Amino acid sequence: MSAKLDSVGFNPEQYMHEVGVQARAASRLLNTADTAGKNAALLAAADAILAAEKTLIATNAKDLAAGEKQGLDAALLDRLALNPKRITGMAEGLQQVASLSDPVGEISDLAYRPSGIQVGRMRVPLGVIGIIYESRPNVTADAAALCLKSGNACILRGGSEALHSNLAIAKCMHQGLEAAGLPKTAVQVIEAADRQLVGLLLKMKQYVDVIVPRGGKSLIARITEESEIPVIKHLDGICHVYIDEQADLEMAINIAFNAKTHRYGVCNAMETLLVHSAVAKQVLPVLAERYRAEKVELRGCERSRAIVSDMKVATEEDWSTEYLAPVLSVKVVDDLQQAIDHIEMYGSHHTDTIVTENYQKARQFLREVDSSSVMVNASTRFSDGFEYGLGAEIGISTDKLHARGPVGLEGLTTQKFIVLGNGQVRI
Amino acid sequence: MSAKLDSVGFNPEQYMHEVGVQARAASRLLNTADTAGKNAALLAAADAILAAEKTLIATNAKDLAAGEKQGLDAALLDRLALNPKRITGMAEGLQQVASLSDPVGEISDLAYRPSGIQVGRMRVPLGVIGIIYESRPNVTADAAALCLKSGNACILRGGSEALHSNLAIAKCMHQGLEAAGLPKTAVQVIEAADRQLVGLLLKMKQYVDVIVPRGGKSLIARITEESEIPVIKHLDGICHVYIDEQADLEMAINIAFNAKTHRYGVCNAMETLLVHSAVAKQVLPVLAERYRAEKVELRGCERSRAIVSDMKVATEEDWSTEYLAPVLSVKVVDDLQQAIDHIEMYGSHHTDTIVTENYQKARQFLREVDSSSVMVNASTRFSDGFEYGLGAEIGISTDKLHARGPVGLEGLTTQKFIVLGNGQVRI
Repeated sequence: MSAKLDSVGFNPEQYMHEVGVQARAASRLLNTADTAGKNAALLAAADAILAAEKTLIATNAKDLAAGEKQGLDAALLDRLALNPKRITGMAEGLQQVASLSDPVGEISDLAYRPSGIQVGRMRVPLGVIGIIYESRPNVTADAAALCLKSGNACILRGGSEALHSNLAIAKCMHQGLEAAGLPKTAVQVIEAADRQLVGLLLKMKQYVDVIVPRGGKSLIARITEESEIPVIKHLDGICHVYIDEQADLEMAINIAFNAKTHRYGVCNAMETLLVHSAVAKQVLPVLAERYRAEKVELRGCERSRAIVSDMKVATEEDWSTEYLAPVLSVKVVDDLQQAIDHIEMYGSHHTDTIVTENYQKARQFLREVDSSSVMVNASTRFSDGFEYGLGAEIGISTDKLHARGPVGLEGLTTQKFIVLGNGQVRI
Repeated sequence: MSAKLDSVGFNPEQYMHEVGVQARAASRLLNTADTAGKNAALLAAADAILAAEKTLIATNAKDLAAGEKQGLDAALLDRLALNPKRITGMAEGLQQVASLSDPVGEISDLAYRPSGIQVGRMRVPLGVIGIIYESRPNVTADAAALCLKSGNACILRGGSEALHSNLAIAKCMHQGLEAAGLPKTAVQVIEAADRQLVGLLLKMKQYVDVIVPRGGKSLIARITEESEIPVIKHLDGICHVYIDEQADLEMAINIAFNAKTHRYGVCNAMETLLVHSAVAKQVLPVLAERYRAEKVELRGCERSRAIVSDMKVATEEDWSTEYLAPVLSVKVVDDLQQAIDHIEMYGSHHTDTIVTENYQKARQFLREVDSSSVMVNASTRFSDGFEYGLGAEIGISTDKLHARGPVGLEGLTTQKFIVLGNGQVRI
């Protein structure tokens, strides 16, 4: 445990105030740091992580031992564990972020106005980003890298069970920052497990510009509720595939199969399949057989069950459930409008796909479905920062304001207006 | 007063719930409304406003009489008043918004990814916008027009003193919507003066996507404090002009004079003048004389007062005061860094200008000053949606997230990802 927590005189307010002041000061230096400097810091931090492999594993072992003693379950311990492969993965992540182009300072839309001034927008860092996450210690490196590259200082608050691991990773980040002449305070890990500190962080409006929670639903809900600072968050992923009557049925079956079975515990997996009544009899038996082979449990509406009799009955609750598991709800609909209405009513505005060969329906689906990602003839599993070419993502936002969908470097920046004149005044 | 408020059975929760449900339903229709339909509604509403001139003035007279009786001050009554010129202005505002290009559906950055999918972004409405404003009834037409053109339903809550005027204007908007076959519920004015209704509106997260308050500081502070919905807001405008040692001094004097004296009560007026010590002796006496002729009160630092002896003493508080009046604080600084540090410490991140002929300093100022508008050689008074070419503005945001600076149609929209494939699945 950190000295600061153990010491008798530890004052949480004072400690967090200092963290905030240092972050704000670091953010001013980062805003003006050049691309080469930020990349040098990232690459040096990657080297430091690789060089520290033994130390990281030894430190992580302490967290794991304490976790076992506390009775953490196997899944949690697995997420907490660092091994050579995960350590190499972290270093590669840093190198990859270094290779991304720098969004800061990018000027767009610069154009002359009738008054003679030129008006444009310049992309700039948000300032200070607070990241609150759970057990995976690699988030320490991943999130810090994205913040650094986008010119933001960050305050990181991981799970208490990963504190030693997170501090050891932060030390490597600090080595990278120092090697590049950037302030260590650009990446600060809150050094005490005291839960009160999260509450304080969420109220530091004067120091923190945005909070990004990463973890389970309950964590995100709690932070959103409590935060006085804007939150970029990810809630449910209740994703749909709609198979239109004019779909290429082989394609439709492949997409529906992939969207459900490629991975189960992810937010962009399909949870509900909608099938046009004109093709349901052709599509559902084939799909049911493929799902059965993967042990996917099907829960259908009455019309689906009339076609595939061994489906369970889907209840009203199923339509708004994110299973994150080999379970799928299935509904037969009579037209595109019914499909869109269902998605609007029960979906979570995350990712929805239509499979169709019809130009007009594809266009309507793209326009009318109000989700962060809307697709035609592709698996919902593509809803991802890497697949979208953002390079890396800090998360997928289900908010509408600021950032929607996968959030990469650009989502950690904002745009200010710039005006270039040669003496213009308002008349 | 509205029937709903007077009736014994008026249930505020039930009323606001109905308003919310109707707004959400209208927003779905508006999202898919075509540009021609929205423009037709705006033009028909403009015609309805012009045709209703006499009714509007008569209705407004009731609000004015009630206001006088209540003892509203002259400035408030002036803002509340409608006259033929203001009514024509409202109609022209609607016509102007109709002439702006429609941001909804705009697709950008559509590009192929290695997987074969095409990924791009489509601009879409936010959904439902709540506008809370004070006495000017013309905001009813202006704000409704911007929301409508950007495909959003709006819930308008004006000052209780303007309720009859606002309802009469909304009636004209409804005529326009009906003429174009769009739902009247796209523009709803809260029909009761009950203050409790604002509190309810600010908690309707399920129906309202963003709140835009327009009015004085105390209104905005209260709404920001109370709202559970994201707020696009405007706080202080403590704007600076920095005259560099390498400025064209005649230009510098003209800009500093214009930025202060063009209008006093506006957020983009200069409140603090910063002058490089090397040119202060040349610049300040000339400027002081011009300001004196306009009866602008000067409050200077010691070094400024050593040059212009009749300046008052600027206190620490002056540097962070938005005068909105013919008052100006003046400070002599030794270099660009001191100027930037002052702006960072005391400014409100609204609009700041450097006057310089030096390329490197202009570049540094543009990059390092963290304000919503940063200018070189132009008056701060240009910080305005019309001057920036946004066509019209719903306000100037001093927030960093989502919209920063003047907020036009684009600020009332968001972007979703669209993916076009031909059967791609994740491997």
